[in-house]
Amino acid sequence: IIGHSLPVNLKKHWFDCTIFLSAYAGFRVIQRLEQEMEKSPGSRPFPEITYCNLGNPQALGQRPITFFREVLSLCDNPALLRRDETRMLFSPCAINRARKIIESMPGRNSGAYTNSQGIRSLREAVASGIAARDGFPSRPEDIFLTDGASSAINLSMQILIRSQEDGVLCPLPEYPLYSASIILHGGTMVPYNLSEDGDWGLEIFEVKRCLEEARIAGLTVRAMVIINPGNPTGQVLSVTNQEEIVEFCRKEGLVMLADEVYQDNVYVEDRKFHSFKKVARSLGYDENDISIVSFHSVSMGFSGECGRRGGYMEICGFGDDVMDEIRKVASVTLCPNIGGQILTSLAMDPPKLGDGCFENFMAEKEDIRLSLAKRAKTLASAFSSLEGMTCNRVEGAIYAFPRIHLPAAAIKAAKAEGMSPDLFYACRLLDATGIAVVPGSGFHQATGTWHIRCTILPGEDKIKVMIPRLKEFHESFMNEF
Amino acid sequence: IIGHSLPVNLKKHWFDCTIFLSAYAGFRVIQRLEQEMEKSPGSRPFPEITYCNLGNPQALGQRPITFFREVLSLCDNPALLRRDETRMLFSPCAINRARKIIESMPGRNSGAYTNSQGIRSLREAVASGIAARDGFPSRPEDIFLTDGASSAINLSMQILIRSQEDGVLCPLPEYPLYSASIILHGGTMVPYNLSEDGDWGLEIFEVKRCLEEARIAGLTVRAMVIINPGNPTGQVLSVTNQEEIVEFCRKEGLVMLADEVYQDNVYVEDRKFHSFKKVARSLGYDENDISIVSFHSVSMGFSGECGRRGGYMEICGFGDDVMDEIRKVASVTLCPNIGGQILTSLAMDPPKLGDGCFENFMAEKEDIRLSLAKRAKTLASAFSSLEGMTCNRVEGAIYAFPRIHLPAAAIKAAKAEGMSPDLFYACRLLDATGIAVVPGSGFHQATGTWHIRCTILPGEDKIKVMIPRLKEFHESFMNEF
Repeated sequence: IIGHSLPVNLKKHWFDCTIFLSAYAGFRVIQRLEQEMEKSPGSRPFPEITYCNLGNPQALGQRPITFFREVLSLCDNPALLRRDETRMLFSPCAINRARKIIESMPGRNSGAYTNSQGIRSLREAVASGIAARDGFPSRPEDIFLTDGASSAINLSMQILIRSQEDGVLCPLPEYPLYSASIILHGGTMVPYNLSEDGDWGLEIFEVKRCLEEARIAGLTVRAMVIINPGNPTGQVLSVTNQEEIVEFCRKEGLVMLADEVYQDNVYVEDRKFHSFKKVARSLGYDENDISIVSFHSVSMGFSGECGRRGGYMEICGFGDDVMDEIRKVASVTLCPNIGGQILTSLAMDPPKLGDGCFENFMAEKEDIRLSLAKRAKTLASAFSSLEGMTCNRVEGAIYAFPRIHLPAAAIKAAKAEGMSPDLFYACRLLDATGIAVVPGSGFHQATGTWHIRCTILPGEDKIKVMIPRLKEFHESFMNEF
Repeated sequence: IIGHSLPVNLKKHWFDCTIFLSAYAGFRVIQRLEQEMEKSPGSRPFPEITYCNLGNPQALGQRPITFFREVLSLCDNPALLRRDETRMLFSPCAINRARKIIESMPGRNSGAYTNSQGIRSLREAVASGIAARDGFPSRPEDIFLTDGASSAINLSMQILIRSQEDGVLCPLPEYPLYSASIILHGGTMVPYNLSEDGDWGLEIFEVKRCLEEARIAGLTVRAMVIINPGNPTGQVLSVTNQEEIVEFCRKEGLVMLADEVYQDNVYVEDRKFHSFKKVARSLGYDENDISIVSFHSVSMGFSGECGRRGGYMEICGFGDDVMDEIRKVASVTLCPNIGGQILTSLAMDPPKLGDGCFENFMAEKEDIRLSLAKRAKTLASAFSSLEGMTCNRVEGAIYAFPRIHLPAAAIKAAKAEGMSPDLFYACRLLDATGIAVVPGSGFHQATGTWHIRCTILPGEDKIKVMIPRLKEFHESFMNEF
């Protein structure tokens, strides 16, 4: 039977990433611990697991934005818009917005297939949000609403990659979705290293070196992925650095794939988010000069609506015939889900000053941002304070990525157990404290260095309790080896 | 610039399907007509366009099921579950279900990433619905909740196809999603013809002939797609026919890809829907004997929730290692959207006798089914009554697929305009009556035959008006040629 020993396509060249993506592996070890703790409570020296492994805000207590959920709820059940009692349960602001959205929908009941790019009025809302953010125009024709950023990234790879001879530049430490997607579409990932000593900045000479090596090896490098703010590295690029990157991609004829999903997660005063499109336009380059795809989603930032699978990509500087092909490929999955489309429009076109719910919306948004900023600072300081650990600032995104300078004896002990040293450390940490992190080897860190990725998502109270436990464990670990 | 003349991967082997999928092309001609009619109202001899081209129920007036939308609305805004006023707007039934769903969710606020296969409790609901339908057990571990059936089909092709030497048997006339997906994943479609004279049934000797030809041509045929009820052909297979197919796939070692998305769209007394899994189990075959993937979605049937992108696949008879790989691939897009997951669980585990909202739910469901059945019969009779047109019964699904026996002069006139004869007919029909249908050449009909695909989705009142217009047009067309 084929199904029993299906020589799955992927086995040929599937990545050996044991700690891939939150939703899949990595989970297993933690699941076993969960089950054990459920069976015999009190069997461990900690009351619960602290989940610093998952980039999943709402699973860790982040509250959804009230306005977003009210609008969604009304659009799901448009009958509510005709009932007086609805005013007792929903803000006028949400009622007005929902009414506007429903009126722009095919069939006016929010369940029909939409255009494969997404509903026109919602794309207009996204485009106006982008224009307001950047100060440069954005056109709804260039917006594709998508089921989260991951679908958009997959679609881009599908379009760009023709064969294994096509390469795509990607940062290391990496976000494994990129390697997975490139491999699944039969291409070759061309990694470039971020500079840990330079605040995880991107050094053009290093990218150029990697590009040239790839070309010598016979690859046609077609695009460059830049993640800003960085995942898993948490940096926010400086404008100067961004300008260098734009110049480089323009000169080398590379499509820029700008992963900007953490644009609302910036925590430091001296850095601001600037989209790569804005930087390119500011340099005077228009769509005849450079091709840029920008990815965004409602999964992170203040929305944290991961499970809703909403996002968009803005595609600039592509030919009309290419855009037609992209629309055709998008149509193979018919259309992005309507709930995600609505959420994306709300996130990019939120309540404005003067709207009844503006103040509540801003308060909820700022609460989340300030709390994340505080946790980012607390965690980075805690890691930095440990002997044998260094940690760059968490300027943005939702991760600390501290480096552990492991003693030779620890490395030897890990080897004896057939583990990478950082996995060994992470397992010991989990075992002793219930703190779940992801070892850096899941992200292709620089050879000979060891890291852990720790989200800043657990609540402030949890982080407060977690830090002394982390310190205690780390000291005893370092003493042991 | 790469983006400007991007030699898109797909151009190499992208299908030449001018009338692909509702959401994309075919639209264009109709869009132009819409714009024209908006600019100069009254310029045409018909007041509006009758959309028989799109399989998009809610865009054509099908109402969503109240219970479904109430539950969705509550799950989006769980704060409602804590308010007394909610009882004035929502049924107790929906409130209970929403509460149960929310309690089973990570973070209890319906916005977190879920397991890549979907939330366990919702998969349990789906599995119990399958077991109740079939009378054979179903396991939540075998259920993958997906963003509609199209994502599931794409994922299956990604798993099955290794190279162009891998073939997948698909019915002609085809549903173009299959050819698109197979080509996108680099495989080869191996078509087999359905028998128009045999009520669009599937003749095993024909499938066997195609399989053998493919093997002689050097292909490894790995799977067979069966669409039941049929799209675009509207047949419901007899159990005897289904048994033959199961025996054939088992003997030939083919994975059965059973597209069963129209399982709730059956309109004739003498045919019933039976899942292929049920037929296989009834024959005594278990998962050691045959591999079956069944696709279902909330887009059709009585739900009609196309834009919500909900669906599932049940994968039976695959090895554990293969299942692990499938989970890994599913995790690349992280998780299916939560709204779609919820809807799928509701459709498969609807209110039961004794639940407060059972009667209302059944009434809404039956209303939709009976009205569709009536329209199916009316349209098929109308087509059959026309000179030079023959039409099989519409036993299920949502399409009539009548054959037009075009006069030689019409074929010649079409050629002169560089069109296929059925496109020529469809354009003339649209032009004269505003009735939009899809020509059969979009579905790879048998050579030398001409068809149109006409959905049964416009409301009964619209169909009543449409039929005399159709007759009048057809007669004058036949007279002209």
